[in-house]
Amino acid sequence: MTEVPRLLVNLKTYSQASGVKAVEIARQAEKVWRETGVLIGIAPNVLDLKVVAESVDIPVYSQHVDPIDPGAHTGHIPPELVKKSGARGSLLNHSEKQIELHHISVAVTKLKELGLSPIVCAPTPQESAAVAALSPDAVAIEPPELIGTGIPVSKAKPEVVQNSLKAVIDVNPNVDLLCGAGITSGEDVRAAIRLGSYGVLVASAVAKSPNPYEKMEELVEPFVEITRA
Amino acid sequence: MTEVPRLLVNLKTYSQASGVKAVEIARQAEKVWRETGVLIGIAPNVLDLKVVAESVDIPVYSQHVDPIDPGAHTGHIPPELVKKSGARGSLLNHSEKQIELHHISVAVTKLKELGLSPIVCAPTPQESAAVAALSPDAVAIEPPELIGTGIPVSKAKPEVVQNSLKAVIDVNPNVDLLCGAGITSGEDVRAAIRLGSYGVLVASAVAKSPNPYEKMEELVEPFVEITRA
Amino acid sequence: MTEVPRLLVNLKTYSQASGVKAVEIARQAEKVWRETGVLIGIAPNVLDLKVVAESVDIPVYSQHVDPIDPGAHTGHIPPELVKKSGARGSLLNHSEKQIELHHISVAVTKLKELGLSPIVCAPTPQESAAVAALSPDAVAIEPPELIGTGIPVSKAKPEVVQNSLKAVIDVNPNVDLLCGAGITSGEDVRAAIRLGSYGVLVASAVAKSPNPYEKMEELVEPFVEITRA
Amino acid sequence: MTEVPRLLVNLKTYSQASGVKAVEIARQAEKVWRETGVLIGIAPNVLDLKVVAESVDIPVYSQHVDPIDPGAHTGHIPPELVKKSGARGSLLNHSEKQIELHHISVAVTKLKELGLSPIVCAPTPQESAAVAALSPDAVAIEPPELIGTGIPVSKAKPEVVQNSLKAVIDVNPNVDLLCGAGITSGEDVRAAIRLGSYGVLVASAVAKSPNPYEKMEELVEPFVEITRA
Repeated sequence: MTEVPRLLVNLKTYSQASGVKAVEIARQAEKVWRETGVLIGIAPNVLDLKVVAESVDIPVYSQHVDPIDPGAHTGHIPPELVKKSGARGSLLNHSEKQIELHHISVAVTKLKELGLSPIVCAPTPQESAAVAALSPDAVAIEPPELIGTGIPVSKAKPEVVQNSLKAVIDVNPNVDLLCGAGITSGEDVRAAIRLGSYGVLVASAVAKSPNPYEKMEELVEPFVEITRA
Repeated sequence: MTEVPRLLVNLKTYSQASGVKAVEIARQAEKVWRETGVLIGIAPNVLDLKVVAESVDIPVYSQHVDPIDPGAHTGHIPPELVKKSGARGSLLNHSEKQIELHHISVAVTKLKELGLSPIVCAPTPQESAAVAALSPDAVAIEPPELIGTGIPVSKAKPEVVQNSLKAVIDVNPNVDLLCGAGITSGEDVRAAIRLGSYGVLVASAVAKSPNPYEKMEELVEPFVEITRA
Repeated sequence: MTEVPRLLVNLKTYSQASGVKAVEIARQAEKVWRETGVLIGIAPNVLDLKVVAESVDIPVYSQHVDPIDPGAHTGHIPPELVKKSGARGSLLNHSEKQIELHHISVAVTKLKELGLSPIVCAPTPQESAAVAALSPDAVAIEPPELIGTGIPVSKAKPEVVQNSLKAVIDVNPNVDLLCGAGITSGEDVRAAIRLGSYGVLVASAVAKSPNPYEKMEELVEPFVEITRA
Repeated sequence: MTEVPRLLVNLKTYSQASGVKAVEIARQAEKVWRETGVLIGIAPNVLDLKVVAESVDIPVYSQHVDPIDPGAHTGHIPPELVKKSGARGSLLNHSEKQIELHHISVAVTKLKELGLSPIVCAPTPQESAAVAALSPDAVAIEPPELIGTGIPVSKAKPEVVQNSLKAVIDVNPNVDLLCGAGITSGEDVRAAIRLGSYGVLVASAVAKSPNPYEKMEELVEPFVEITRA
């Protein structure tokens, strides 16, 4: 099983984080990991998945997979081909790509059968508990109203993180909790850790940063502090 | 809160169980309830919902609701208008009408805020646990490969019912478990009860029966036996 | 074949135009039709479809149908049951309920086979032409950015109406053109007619009016004027 | 504008036509093109799109694009990133990836604005005419009931091809017609050409062939014959 990253960077389909820039950010993430020992994962857009996966040793995630096997499925993304492309896991049910419950369930199962790591997103404590019941490796809690705002969930809605954590543990204590939405600074990450998060899921903070390398250094620093302590 | 029926009859969009026939079956269900004391619920197609609800005193369920408030939503089915039509609850996420996890969650919340009873369908123990985390009044477990086959889940896959029951109780002990798919006889219902089901969800067994009244009498008999015992 | 109404009133899922209020507006529409001879159609929410259809002699439309026959389709709306409920046709592909091209095509065919009248919505001249190729009875052109604004398409975007009309005629001269979005006054209807519209599709102007009867009288007046001229 | 290929090879998500095998088939297609002058296009799965596009000079197509610009759209496929990956166009609305009419329309427009070539699939003459109204570069007619059967549409349903051709020309004479479904031999291609097809869309015939190079040679031969004649 792939260890769940402490920092998972979702590059979405941002133009400024695609193509050669996606590879560059992934290499910077790898460098930060080598320097700090804090595991970083990268989720590039699906068109860049293979080239990013071939460029780095840190885990690379698809942003979505369809609940199907390879075959006559024009335009779909089977987990098996995601694995063949070098990915180590996939996000599922991101608030920008919500899917049917049954599709989440089948995709989680298929990913795990292939040795890939499913990380399922959810917007509320209740839905975090629901997806935890499907036994993914991690649940990423992201209140969609905070995504892209720069208002960190760990500060604006600490109870959402705490309740999600409690709900997830109650249902399935083996599932790690990431928190996301609005996280832009080391300070936000520190707050997330204090609330019990295993790690954080970020997007624009890194993808749109003038200096993604420095930003990632800042975001993993709180995890370094934990290790030191 | 509406008590969860022991027997929930889904009329689907069967032509032979629509219009005046839907009302007739609902009245027969009401009669069986009066005679036996075993609560029966009816889920007619949405076009027949209001006329059925106006015709009987047993609880009537919508087959689906959209996760929205009334307003500019052409072609949708808001829970508030379902309530206004006289329904007492709604099925959600039937295997023939699967929806996004977030839509299930929002619809459950809206139904409960309106005093309506949400009953969420799921095809596997894992998904039963997942939807139980959303706190509906009941979860209806139906392996889709058995739906309409006449092979009862309570006999063909007793472990599915047992595991679902266990999974649901672990996540949320306040949620009742119905089991469905292939249930056509009192014997099948007895098996379901032995496995721990609170009640059963049936469709073609009643909707396509030459004598729905007798069929419902047969299907509730095991619940009468329990009461007597 | 049902004659296409000059004024088609979409009640959407507005609370204030549902239940007894839906029936009341339909009866007022019928009265205006009897007084003026201008045909008015009503599209209530699906839960109210049957009771509205049973209350009036003017054509009643579903707001949506699924491209299926009756059967094991929990939560769906088959054209055949819409017919059984007394409807004379259905809207399809409203901008608030957009569907796959193939579903529009199959639904149009099923409606026509049943003697029901399909009226397909489209937001642009190109898409008006596309749906005209499927031979519905009418195409309703509604730029979604104007829906509910009170800014009438017939005045804000006269070229959209004109280009749609031209495009529809080129593809299929037997298809009537309705125009909608932002139409709230007799003056707006007059502009629509001048641009070549056969009729108009309105929603909030009537559904939210303090006096739907007077509003409908105002909206059909331009059609009366044509007849007189 | 990219010239529409006479032979468009859809690799779907077949495992045996993914990864290095996708690149190999694309290079063989390029070789056949160089030897015969008949233009061949390749549509690999989206994970392989970039590596295939970088490997060959023949046009490479995405199997699907979403109707969006780059940005906060996790898990989606924006036309702009498809272009950046080196694709020259995209299939849209394949019967295995059907989308809303409005999404086809917006995607066609975005592709054309970017100088990419949209090829829209449709299963019937009516829907071929509908999508022709959206002015893609080509319409690919594929009755889904024949896909993967080896029964060629050009022989089993010649009237479907002829009626589609007529319908497309009537609506938009600038749109090329491809025909697909069940085409596995040069003989099938010859039949398609006789019916008026500009080219053919194939999948399993090449993707699952033990010798894709020879199969493509066979499939383009009828186009060579035309040029000679």
